Amino acid sequence: MEKVSIGLGDRSYEIHIGSGLLSGSRVGPVPSSGTVAVVVTDKRVRPLYGASLLGALRDAYPHVHTVTLPDGEEHKNWQTLNLIFDALLTHGCDRKTVLYALGGGVIGDMTGFAAACYMRGIDFVQVPTTLLAQVDSSVGGKTAINHPLGKNMIGAFHQPRLVICDLSTLDTLPARELAAGIAEVIKYGPIADMELFAWLEANMDALLARDHAALAHVVKRSCEIKAAVVGADEREAGLRAILNFGHTFGHAIEAGMGYGEWLHGEGVAAGMVMAAELSRRLGLVDGDFVGRLRVLIARAGLPVRGPVLDARDNAGRYLELMRVDKKAEAGEIRFVLIDGPGRAVVRPAPDALVREVIDACCATA
Amino acid sequence: MEKVSIGLGDRSYEIHIGSGLLSGSRVGPVPSSGTVAVVVTDKRVRPLYGASLLGALRDAYPHVHTVTLPDGEEHKNWQTLNLIFDALLTHGCDRKTVLYALGGGVIGDMTGFAAACYMRGIDFVQVPTTLLAQVDSSVGGKTAINHPLGKNMIGAFHQPRLVICDLSTLDTLPARELAAGIAEVIKYGPIADMELFAWLEANMDALLARDHAALAHVVKRSCEIKAAVVGADEREAGLRAILNFGHTFGHAIEAGMGYGEWLHGEGVAAGMVMAAELSRRLGLVDGDFVGRLRVLIARAGLPVRGPVLDARDNAGRYLELMRVDKKAEAGEIRFVLIDGPGRAVVRPAPDALVREVIDACCATA
Repeated sequence: MEKVSIGLGDRSYEIHIGSGLLSGSRVGPVPSSGTVAVVVTDKRVRPLYGASLLGALRDAYPHVHTVTLPDGEEHKNWQTLNLIFDALLTHGCDRKTVLYALGGGVIGDMTGFAAACYMRGIDFVQVPTTLLAQVDSSVGGKTAINHPLGKNMIGAFHQPRLVICDLSTLDTLPARELAAGIAEVIKYGPIADMELFAWLEANMDALLARDHAALAHVVKRSCEIKAAVVGADEREAGLRAILNFGHTFGHAIEAGMGYGEWLHGEGVAAGMVMAAELSRRLGLVDGDFVGRLRVLIARAGLPVRGPVLDARDNAGRYLELMRVDKKAEAGEIRFVLIDGPGRAVVRPAPDALVREVIDACCATA
Repeated sequence: MEKVSIGLGDRSYEIHIGSGLLSGSRVGPVPSSGTVAVVVTDKRVRPLYGASLLGALRDAYPHVHTVTLPDGEEHKNWQTLNLIFDALLTHGCDRKTVLYALGGGVIGDMTGFAAACYMRGIDFVQVPTTLLAQVDSSVGGKTAINHPLGKNMIGAFHQPRLVICDLSTLDTLPARELAAGIAEVIKYGPIADMELFAWLEANMDALLARDHAALAHVVKRSCEIKAAVVGADEREAGLRAILNFGHTFGHAIEAGMGYGEWLHGEGVAAGMVMAAELSRRLGLVDGDFVGRLRVLIARAGLPVRGPVLDARDNAGRYLELMRVDKKAEAGEIRFVLIDGPGRAVVRPAPDALVREVIDACCATA
């Protein structure tokens, strides 16, 4: 088993990475927990891994309950969140109850937000079962639900007590979701670690074949990089924004296509190419770098071109969507750009140049 | 104008106490705010003070919006909270938007919770217009909404950037609500400051006549005491629980009567007598102390006896309700008791003794 320690003072925790962990003896109890654990999962994941985790938790806590939510981003809303609160209150759960989020990013986000709000904050443990959740939402403490007018608009920063990345759960992950997770792994190269990028160029086949040693390496390295960034900027005041490389364009793609059409990682993949191309046109990186990034993304089976969101004024539609992004300030879009391979910078860019990039990087251009 | 400084590191803020403050030049802007302020108020308060605050804010922020919520504890729920989110998103409010809570405790709790969750946390300012809100919710950062299965069950700790206690707003407060606020002021005596208690014995008439100098004194002193307690225990791990003197019985009264029948302060008033009587029967204080407390509470026009919640088994009903309180741990009720005048202690008590106290302190007993 590999370990990554996240140092955040009294909110520090460990990420455990390995095969078969969720049925093991280290799932709990977490320090200062009470006697009750509640597993929050969804209808898709529960039949796959629910019994294993519940079995392990019953050895760690006298009382274990389960809440099974509907599956999918479209249920990441208040109504579904309230099913968690209903269950906690019906079972008389107190402030020492520990929630276990068993599932992908949606389950992690909702369970974390429920833990942040229930009685003004209880402990939770992340048991992410997708690559995306293991490399991205394991670190950072971001939790949220969607609002009809915007994704992840209602949420909190709330750190888990423990993250259990069981690589065995990735064996059953659909290929498209595996690729979407790899997009977030690729991201860490341009912004922080070109060694990881080169490793991915050499080992993409093993990763796509779900080799556990390869998966362990990328999960560990991704968590380490993200931890270093988040440790320096827990509340997203500045540096942390570089983790959104590819996300500004990516969020516009997700929103413009209707959530669920493009997976988050797919939007980020095409968005990284756009952000790299914008960096190139601003004179920050050369064409070779953009080419390497495009090739690696394509090898992962991910899209390298954005979709057309509006046949009449495609670039205008992208800009419109990017201006309402949470990261925008007073309508000014702040792009995460690559300021030389392995180094990111956050800055605005002229609309005209952004339009050129969108025109050059979209499907029918 | 009086000031109380709340020292909580980078979450420190000031409480301003005085007459006519909400139409003055010091309402804003708060540090590092953006260009937008949003006033959240209710249908009762808006016609009284909305125009004054809006006028002052328009001098401080380029853009000022208002959200008017329905009035009353029964609306302190997700549906009403969502009206705030709807307005923020419709106006395109970004992370530098500042919310102003203009109203009583319900408005403060909901606005604070909305600020805690919107885009994972934005700034807010409390402008409490009831004595209860000025002396209680000004300090501590507790925000919440109710769940059908429990009061204040969903919430967050989120500190305001500034609290403006405008004593002029108390001129229009119904007498019953003024008294309910005085209950929370009286509370600070037995748990922390018998000098304040003696001051109240000498000045209750001035307070009931809404003399601004008397009001300023109790608001300032209450905030100082609460600040000292909260500063030592921001996340309610231990000491802070003493602020709930009278609240364990009080919450049972509120819940048992149906929310809104008894005001929070009224429940706390009768609850303090019960908790003091329990302290006496445990040998912690003498009968003189309980008598002094009962007399002062009665002089404020507050109830000194609890209502009968169940004609067949009144004490059983109280115990049942107290066991589901947020403060209970694994069903054990933790009482805030007076361990000598001016000093509180938190501990469990034998059911049989609690039953005796309830029987002795309720209306028809």
